[in-house]
Amino acid sequence: MANRQLRIGTILHGASGNMSAWRHPAAVVDASINLKYATSVARKAEQGKLDFLFVADGLFINEKSIPHFLNRFEPLTLLSTLAAVTEHIGLVGTVSTSYSEPFTVARQFASLDHLSGGRAGWNVVTSPLEGSAKNFSRAQHPEHALRYRIADEYLQVVKGLWDSWEEDAFIRNKESGQFFDASKLHTLDHHGDFFQVQGPLNIGRTPQGRPIVFQAGASVDGRKLAARHADAIFTHQPTLEEAQAFYRDVKQQLVANGRKPDDLHIFQGVSVIVGKDAEDVEQQYQTTASLVSIKDALNYLGRFFDHHDFSQYPLDAPFPDIGDIGQNSFRSTTDEIKEKARKYGHTLRQAALEAATERPKFFGTPEEVADGLQRWFEAEATDGFIIHGGTPDTFERFVDQVIPVLQARGLFRSEYPGVTLRDSLGLSQPVNQFSQ
Amino acid sequence: MANRQLRIGTILHGASGNMSAWRHPAAVVDASINLKYATSVARKAEQGKLDFLFVADGLFINEKSIPHFLNRFEPLTLLSTLAAVTEHIGLVGTVSTSYSEPFTVARQFASLDHLSGGRAGWNVVTSPLEGSAKNFSRAQHPEHALRYRIADEYLQVVKGLWDSWEEDAFIRNKESGQFFDASKLHTLDHHGDFFQVQGPLNIGRTPQGRPIVFQAGASVDGRKLAARHADAIFTHQPTLEEAQAFYRDVKQQLVANGRKPDDLHIFQGVSVIVGKDAEDVEQQYQTTASLVSIKDALNYLGRFFDHHDFSQYPLDAPFPDIGDIGQNSFRSTTDEIKEKARKYGHTLRQAALEAATERPKFFGTPEEVADGLQRWFEAEATDGFIIHGGTPDTFERFVDQVIPVLQARGLFRSEYPGVTLRDSLGLSQPVNQFSQ
Repeated sequence: MANRQLRIGTILHGASGNMSAWRHPAAVVDASINLKYATSVARKAEQGKLDFLFVADGLFINEKSIPHFLNRFEPLTLLSTLAAVTEHIGLVGTVSTSYSEPFTVARQFASLDHLSGGRAGWNVVTSPLEGSAKNFSRAQHPEHALRYRIADEYLQVVKGLWDSWEEDAFIRNKESGQFFDASKLHTLDHHGDFFQVQGPLNIGRTPQGRPIVFQAGASVDGRKLAARHADAIFTHQPTLEEAQAFYRDVKQQLVANGRKPDDLHIFQGVSVIVGKDAEDVEQQYQTTASLVSIKDALNYLGRFFDHHDFSQYPLDAPFPDIGDIGQNSFRSTTDEIKEKARKYGHTLRQAALEAATERPKFFGTPEEVADGLQRWFEAEATDGFIIHGGTPDTFERFVDQVIPVLQARGLFRSEYPGVTLRDSLGLSQPVNQFSQ
Repeated sequence: MANRQLRIGTILHGASGNMSAWRHPAAVVDASINLKYATSVARKAEQGKLDFLFVADGLFINEKSIPHFLNRFEPLTLLSTLAAVTEHIGLVGTVSTSYSEPFTVARQFASLDHLSGGRAGWNVVTSPLEGSAKNFSRAQHPEHALRYRIADEYLQVVKGLWDSWEEDAFIRNKESGQFFDASKLHTLDHHGDFFQVQGPLNIGRTPQGRPIVFQAGASVDGRKLAARHADAIFTHQPTLEEAQAFYRDVKQQLVANGRKPDDLHIFQGVSVIVGKDAEDVEQQYQTTASLVSIKDALNYLGRFFDHHDFSQYPLDAPFPDIGDIGQNSFRSTTDEIKEKARKYGHTLRQAALEAATERPKFFGTPEEVADGLQRWFEAEATDGFIIHGGTPDTFERFVDQVIPVLQARGLFRSEYPGVTLRDSLGLSQPVNQFSQ
């Protein structure tokens, strides 16, 4: 374990901070649709030798959606553009398995992997929002367990398509006229419960063998899917103990699936604030938190609960009992919000404002933030972190001030170890399932 | 008409030339998956002040497919990457309406339009290849007329989604907290025969108002679709007279649809060879044509006819009568091949080699090539051209030698007139259908 290395990514998330962070004095007000901003974050991440830039996504909005969801780049096109202006940073994009075609998604990520020289990652989600069905000509949103059955088969198909061509299938001999070796072309011919996909894919094996697969659901079904198929998990556990339990559970499931514990990295998504001292940190937090009106906070809360209207309840009474609403959407998040409200006896107002501007898990001076990350890492609560800036100006400070501390402690790289995201993550090149 | 300006695009098509052009001494052997090559073509096109770079596509391959279809970039990801390394050139990509979701395609092209500063174009196709169904979990490939009915509704949906937000919908006032003007958000709520799409789209109105829409089928249904929805047609008419008839027909249909004749540009896809003299041109043609074996030529021919096996017929007998095979795929191309064979009394061998390496429509010295383009343009056979290099080293000569002749004659621009593809094409900014 002496050489175990921390992995760190960051997320493009609007102006960074809460849903009102665009109002922050330091905020780029149109961050979610501003290429210059996205480029600056990607380059800053690369300057810090971070593993990857992560782009979340969603397939349904309405007038209550939080600002940066209303108007944002589509992940695959954004990451393809960023591929041209960066050299080392991994490019991880979210695409749902519930509302897309495996042939297309396999192609687009394979293409991004070729275009970026081996830096593509796919964050597999099953789409939490019920409303998504209405944008995709579906009578209803598939329920949670069904979504994960579909996702499992979807991943089998995509991985099969990514193995259509062996690495050395293309001969391209101008003299002999042989363009490819037919014995290295594999037609998938998948016939399953949800998908019938013949293949082969019309793009060759990618620089990473195949793009890196992230999974971002922490539910029982989500973990199971990850243990079978993913190279990385993006999760969010409230406490060290819960993170440790999650970590043990996933690593055990990996072994149960015949995989090695380090075949998959677990990433905790954490918000951080870096300051000169406690007072500075608190002031930064309050500046951001105060941007949120209670109306906005209730709307934001409602989004996790299938756009439930929380304005109908008294604000200063205990968090209302709303039954199972939202169970088919962001299950792990709604469970956490309800559990927390019960545990701390929060009123609706407190729960809403808390959900809107979560107190950063790691905050303080650069050394204190590094301490927190190190503690979680060494306690095997995680293999790495996906850093959210707790305020719009946090990420730059994180790279400039916290990364050097982690490097000095020997926890984080000072140079990229190779050229691909797979190299950065220290994951081995996958074997083609069809190779002899 | 004095100021009528020629429009010129080019196409990324493997090594450029016929399907064996990768064997040409000047060929980039892996052109279809080589970003450096794609970038060089895009930049060369931009140096020549061309309107756009066009990327074709297909959704089904097998071991008989021509080399550059086997392993190529996916159009949207490729164009998004090229957006970052170019400034002016339009970026037109092919996506099928038969095997995709309008919400996703609307988003991805809108995103490309934002990322490129208004240079996105979508080439709408309905997928000619029967095999495509097998990659997309479909029992069968929809027949030709049905595909065009689907495409028509699909385009209504996509255009409706592109109008989700008015241009000035986003206020982003940090002081007041108003992020957008709710009266400028429009929810489509489309309920049709093939699609149920609520909207709104989660990306704002694009720099071009909406991306430019190309249509690339020359059948009766294809023209009808274009006359209703497209800004440009990519077609391929064998003779000046046929091109004039096509031009008149489409322009009349535009008027019948309440549009102006110059609301849509017609582009003839033409192959060119530029040489020092007739002998040089013929030698260039023969060098490329001789790369194709009769076996490859028969395979290539078969692709247009639903992968029909032409090797079963005598090579030197008249072109065989194969009935309606291929009628549901590349209808206009198969009709043309059969018609030509009948007209000239071609044998199968002649027809196959002819189809594999079509003699360029315009060839000769730079002045002679310019003469041909000018003749078609002035005869109202076309509004512009999509140039295929007839050999792998043609396009550079076209830009360096033919473009200056066209410029000197006042037929083609010497500077870009604006920043968007719409500006280059001289098309007006579309009105949002929901605006008051």
